[in-house]
Amino acid sequence: MTGTLYGIGVGPGDPELMTVKAVRILQSAPVIAYPAADDGDSSARMIAAQFIPGEAIEMAIRVPMRPGRMPVEVYDQAARDIAVHLAEDRDVAVLCEGDPFFYGSFMYLHDRLAGTWPCRVVPGVSSLTACAAATAHPLVRRNDTLIVLPATLPDADLASRLEANNAAAILKVGRHLPRLRTIIEACGLTARTHYVEYASRDNEMVVRLEDRDDSPAPYFSMLLISEGDN
Amino acid sequence: MTGTLYGIGVGPGDPELMTVKAVRILQSAPVIAYPAADDGDSSARMIAAQFIPGEAIEMAIRVPMRPGRMPVEVYDQAARDIAVHLAEDRDVAVLCEGDPFFYGSFMYLHDRLAGTWPCRVVPGVSSLTACAAATAHPLVRRNDTLIVLPATLPDADLASRLEANNAAAILKVGRHLPRLRTIIEACGLTARTHYVEYASRDNEMVVRLEDRDDSPAPYFSMLLISEGDN
Repeated sequence: MTGTLYGIGVGPGDPELMTVKAVRILQSAPVIAYPAADDGDSSARMIAAQFIPGEAIEMAIRVPMRPGRMPVEVYDQAARDIAVHLAEDRDVAVLCEGDPFFYGSFMYLHDRLAGTWPCRVVPGVSSLTACAAATAHPLVRRNDTLIVLPATLPDADLASRLEANNAAAILKVGRHLPRLRTIIEACGLTARTHYVEYASRDNEMVVRLEDRDDSPAPYFSMLLISEGDN
Repeated sequence: MTGTLYGIGVGPGDPELMTVKAVRILQSAPVIAYPAADDGDSSARMIAAQFIPGEAIEMAIRVPMRPGRMPVEVYDQAARDIAVHLAEDRDVAVLCEGDPFFYGSFMYLHDRLAGTWPCRVVPGVSSLTACAAATAHPLVRRNDTLIVLPATLPDADLASRLEANNAAAILKVGRHLPRLRTIIEACGLTARTHYVEYASRDNEMVVRLEDRDDSPAPYFSMLLISEGDN
């Protein structure tokens, strides 16, 4: 007998946007792991906090916050630590902001463990649909195409994809906001673009792009370009 | 005082993939509406059934099942019926499979009502992330681009978008499966493609595209092309 590795999507931020299934699995998981900053703060853990049993073994995976670089040795070590529990027949639930397979760091553990151990992914509400709900504008309908783009792509790659599709989401806006504004304006899409930060959280902010100044945006902010109101 | 219109994402099929928030709102909603087939069957209602209070007023919106045509008069009438409840200060919760703003028919009610009445959207787990979870393969990571495509697009439009992006989801596969297979093969992407039907339901089926024959696929099936295993 071995334990099972669970990748648990805990949704975009509001604890009520966790699924019933995520809550059930957490409430009985003997070991709960989550990504954490150097100082130990974990956004994923904060979302799920009220559902974590007091007797659970907790494992903070401290990931240095340097965008663009994947700390291989951190995930190697975390995978070894998790495997110890799995080998001793303890399930391990890994908390994942949003959805585990939608730009989530859970993949790095999945890469290392899913070939050897039983693994299940519990999908969650992604930032994509949470941000769309926040804008109060339908994102895609009927035969629309939707492109999802990280803000780090080169200008020309962003522009060609924005022009080729009906709707778009640009992730990890952060310091790229002024550059993205220029591209979106050149594509004639500004009037259809919303800026969203901290979707579903107490500090959620949604504005039309034209009403957003160029002051710094948080890393997890998003631009959504929707088809409009039909 | 007026009621509020709620668009409630009930997720992809497993009732446990409903959010805590969706369950809470449904359990106290005086009026619950949902799309239904001509014969009255409603997939959205089946997902949420255990959370619908016996005393709720239920409203089945009977939508003729003819893909490609939006029955304007059905949504006009449903919007009028819903408005009667809102005017009398009763909240109306509309059940939406998956997520309300991700290719959902809730948009047709939103178009007609959100300009006049208070409206909130509760995001749900979309078919996109539910299907990715079912494949047990990460969909997008780091700086990947993702394209979401309805199967109804012309061949050349599908091919150019598949070739331009790292990952793809093709929705509403249904009768298009043989044609899609030819396009994906020509793009050299067959080995990275999974076929999924009824994700998260008891009759879920996941296979690699190369292991799926060309027998008829249900309308709500999906092809997922992921980046592979790193």
